Amino acid sequence: MSDMIEPIARMVNQLARLPGVGRKTAQRLAYHIVSLPEDQVRELAAAIFNGKKQVHFCSVCGNYTTEDPCPICRDDDRKNGLLCVVRDPRDVMAMERMQDFRGQYHVLHGVISPMQGIGPDDIRIRELMQRLADGSIEEVILATNPDVEGEATASYIARLIKPMGIRVTRIAHGIPVGADLEYTDEVTLSKAFQGRSEI
Amino acid sequence: MSDMIEPIARMVNQLARLPGVGRKTAQRLAYHIVSLPEDQVRELAAAIFNGKKQVHFCSVCGNYTTEDPCPICRDDDRKNGLLCVVRDPRDVMAMERMQDFRGQYHVLHGVISPMQGIGPDDIRIRELMQRLADGSIEEVILATNPDVEGEATASYIARLIKPMGIRVTRIAHGIPVGADLEYTDEVTLSKAFQGRSEI
Repeated sequence: MSDMIEPIARMVNQLARLPGVGRKTAQRLAYHIVSLPEDQVRELAAAIFNGKKQVHFCSVCGNYTTEDPCPICRDDDRKNGLLCVVRDPRDVMAMERMQDFRGQYHVLHGVISPMQGIGPDDIRIRELMQRLADGSIEEVILATNPDVEGEATASYIARLIKPMGIRVTRIAHGIPVGADLEYTDEVTLSKAFQGRSEI
Repeated sequence: MSDMIEPIARMVNQLARLPGVGRKTAQRLAYHIVSLPEDQVRELAAAIFNGKKQVHFCSVCGNYTTEDPCPICRDDDRKNGLLCVVRDPRDVMAMERMQDFRGQYHVLHGVISPMQGIGPDDIRIRELMQRLADGSIEEVILATNPDVEGEATASYIARLIKPMGIRVTRIAHGIPVGADLEYTDEVTLSKAFQGRSEI
């Protein structure tokens, strides 16, 4: 006989498909879930299923939302001419946590990556250009990740937008707060050096 | 505003209650789940909920099962007079993976732990004694973990069973296969020494 009964094996298989969850972890989780009261398991399963079902993309910015347009896009206080371009909804969450940015977002849902066959038409660049057409945006802040794909995507978008007379900026590269100069890689250090500002 | 919309926040809260899943991991999982096709999420949620709902305890051995008694308890080939006592269903799984033991099991669902207020009446020792009453079991193998609680539980059960004239054995302590003598702790080494066998 198999070492796991069928319903537990099925749960393990499903859990093991999640990112960062291996078979051992999936087994530990499955046996834990089976040992929980039925109410709690119902809540867990419902939260997972409803979370997926109730969440949609905002037709304006592309962020996850339950209502369309999303609360940020509807908020008149945030229509201040600033538009922050990020790769995915998680990045919006990170920016919102910062509580410093009060403009609007545009989520690309990916970055240009020739290696993975993702070109400019596969991410929401066309939608970005459409949003910029009405002239209400004065500055586009490119906040893609500081890696090869993120940089390439930022340069590509910058080249498209600049001719429209809109200010295009890129978030700063540098040494993270609290980090140690000695252990900072050369590329970051070089970026931090180039980006130095007067004090 | 909050940095996560409500359905995602609820999913994160639920996932973060699982063992070994912190808030960061729960967020990563939640955003991954939201990005999956609805079918896959439905399968995941169903596997979790049905896994819990379809799995019960075997009224004989206490292991998880979909039918009562469980396939192992019903299997006549396994009624060979050997009974292996383990702490929880996960240990049955580990023993079954070994494919060396062909007897029956008894799951205690815990070990005696005065520190956590778990006494002999809180685990399935009474059920064990009832099973032994019919005289069909010739040897009880105590396979609780080799830690303080596991040892205490094994001694306690051994003291109860020995007067009944049933053979009581304990799984061997020793150096794990593939491990290094140099890095083995003294207690294990001492147990391995005491438990030496002729070659």
